[in-house]
Amino acid sequence: MTARRQPVLGILGGGQLARMLALAAAPLGVNTLVVDSAPDACAGQVAPLRVADWTDYAALEKFAAEVDVVTFDFENVPAETAHWLAERVAVFPDPRALAVAQDRLAEKTLFRECGLNTPAFEAVDTRADLDRALANIGAPAILKTRRLGYDGKGQFRIKQLSDADAAWAALGAQANAHGLILEAFVPFERELSVLAVRTRDGDFHIWPLTQNWHTDGVLSLSLAPAQNIDTLQKRAEELAHVLAERLGYVGVFALELFVKDGELLGNEMAPRVHNSGHWTIEGAIASQFENHVRAVLGLPLGDTSARGFSAMFNWIGELPDPAPVFRTVDAHWHDYGKQPRPGRKVGHATVCADSASALAARVGDIARALQREEQAAPALHVLS
Amino acid sequence: MTARRQPVLGILGGGQLARMLALAAAPLGVNTLVVDSAPDACAGQVAPLRVADWTDYAALEKFAAEVDVVTFDFENVPAETAHWLAERVAVFPDPRALAVAQDRLAEKTLFRECGLNTPAFEAVDTRADLDRALANIGAPAILKTRRLGYDGKGQFRIKQLSDADAAWAALGAQANAHGLILEAFVPFERELSVLAVRTRDGDFHIWPLTQNWHTDGVLSLSLAPAQNIDTLQKRAEELAHVLAERLGYVGVFALELFVKDGELLGNEMAPRVHNSGHWTIEGAIASQFENHVRAVLGLPLGDTSARGFSAMFNWIGELPDPAPVFRTVDAHWHDYGKQPRPGRKVGHATVCADSASALAARVGDIARALQREEQAAPALHVLS
Repeated sequence: MTARRQPVLGILGGGQLARMLALAAAPLGVNTLVVDSAPDACAGQVAPLRVADWTDYAALEKFAAEVDVVTFDFENVPAETAHWLAERVAVFPDPRALAVAQDRLAEKTLFRECGLNTPAFEAVDTRADLDRALANIGAPAILKTRRLGYDGKGQFRIKQLSDADAAWAALGAQANAHGLILEAFVPFERELSVLAVRTRDGDFHIWPLTQNWHTDGVLSLSLAPAQNIDTLQKRAEELAHVLAERLGYVGVFALELFVKDGELLGNEMAPRVHNSGHWTIEGAIASQFENHVRAVLGLPLGDTSARGFSAMFNWIGELPDPAPVFRTVDAHWHDYGKQPRPGRKVGHATVCADSASALAARVGDIARALQREEQAAPALHVLS
Repeated sequence: MTARRQPVLGILGGGQLARMLALAAAPLGVNTLVVDSAPDACAGQVAPLRVADWTDYAALEKFAAEVDVVTFDFENVPAETAHWLAERVAVFPDPRALAVAQDRLAEKTLFRECGLNTPAFEAVDTRADLDRALANIGAPAILKTRRLGYDGKGQFRIKQLSDADAAWAALGAQANAHGLILEAFVPFERELSVLAVRTRDGDFHIWPLTQNWHTDGVLSLSLAPAQNIDTLQKRAEELAHVLAERLGYVGVFALELFVKDGELLGNEMAPRVHNSGHWTIEGAIASQFENHVRAVLGLPLGDTSARGFSAMFNWIGELPDPAPVFRTVDAHWHDYGKQPRPGRKVGHATVCADSASALAARVGDIARALQREEQAAPALHVLS
């Protein structure tokens, strides 16, 4: 019997995604080491945490020496940091994939090159660009920063052409630093996401498509598998596969999609585990967190099949009373260990069942007990 | 929004049980703090670890001040330590339950008082006691230390009456310190265990009975739910309930049972989460670890129903090649992050399926790939 050394997975960013990655890594015998600039980053409750910012190269040098593989909880790690680390240690996904996902223009251009249609879009660097783009795309449309936007931040909705001045007032200052993009507003029928995973040697799988609902730009509810997806599952798998191959992607990523007239349109890509995949912890045979760890460590993937039906409530700002979730059969509470703060993702609950009707009953019970009927309503409508 | 403080669960002992308790506690928003005398205790990879021994009252005083509730990974914490802590902080299960489970004589006496029959037994404190007990009980029988035995340690099997001298030579020196007990050897048909959980306010549930097989006194394989248990599940639930009420027990405990002529006989009780319940992580709606945390923290219990069929391989000494487990659908790898050592529990794998035949196929595949047909054979026999 020879002594063993456990592999160490380094994670840039110490939020709830890092926390759930660390919890999934432990049973695999993989230790984690997290870097975050916040000393109270919630992943630090379950894994060792190094407090450092993205330009603290002395700290990152030590970190790189302590880990076997580096991955991300956070896609807005500066590209220079990711590249610098990739010269010292294996980094998955590759920093090039991160760079594409950080730029809405590059991302949508790539989607189209991969055969995934998108809403009409145009780059906007100046006030004149905005007028030209609006003339081409029309209203309604959404002006967005090309970089650093997430959860509805860095966006301005242009309802009519005369909103151009207000849009420019809101975001024009960021045109130089980050660039802007004007996107057509698509009156989509549904929002779906595909969670996909690819290994170092090209094995590729997706989980069943998830239907998502957002409130104020933040995910509020997911339902999986999405209902009535007919041929969309196969189509989504093909598109995600092309994209993954194109990027040489290793690990889990999410692709947010609109469905319009039965067609899939690409909205954005998250080069990491994703909020809309949290249901996979209990609702799939292998979770997005376990498979991300497996993929970046070079292990074979677990099965991405769903176990029955799942719905996920996102808890934003502060946690509701957990009692109704604790009392409900096959409902699972996830507290991220964060302090409450308006707009902050502080936890979620996944409700599972063997049938759509049993799921609807459980989701309805929890929603009524928490007076969150509005949050649950769209899923209950789909399940009915 | 008011700032929150997360509850902290203190765990005495930092082995794999503490590790899996900590992993189950995190999603509930419960932080853990572990005490162990070994600086490399494997729970320390997933939770903060205080290195101290059971008589380091200065360290225990600090520990008690940092936690809200104390529980055990290890039942052989000295009774004085447990009582001392219970005067300072809530300790579950109650140290009295721990004391009973630490003494085979008290334990078996309690079983009988609760209506659970046991193999014949007699206390042995002297060489003359041994002769008298052997005359009453006959051979084969097993001489055991009353305290501190586990996994077949501190036991001597007396095959015939003339083995008495050898048995005394092996264990007589411990008669003064710990006391001994002679137990009839029962040619049982099967070994089952019941995992039970009771809350602070008396809510009580058991998981489906588990069938277990041991090698050299150490659990090697479990199958759950045990097959052909007819009325045994209900009977086990009644007995475990009486026992739990009698002890005012809070948390999870295991009761190891023999089945002889269709009757349940009590072998021993473990006042903690138990190796034969590891399958509940993936094989039940709520695991023994989650429900133990819920119970000791005063939260309502999760559902103890099984999801389909599960088998658990124990990995003793060193881990086998994980690849066959990783490749098998719904098979789950658990590496405790320990160094290899002969006889040490270093990990387990749980294999799940929706039918007994699918489970047999998966277990058979893994066993063949690992050349562990012998380990899997008894479960495959039951499943066939």
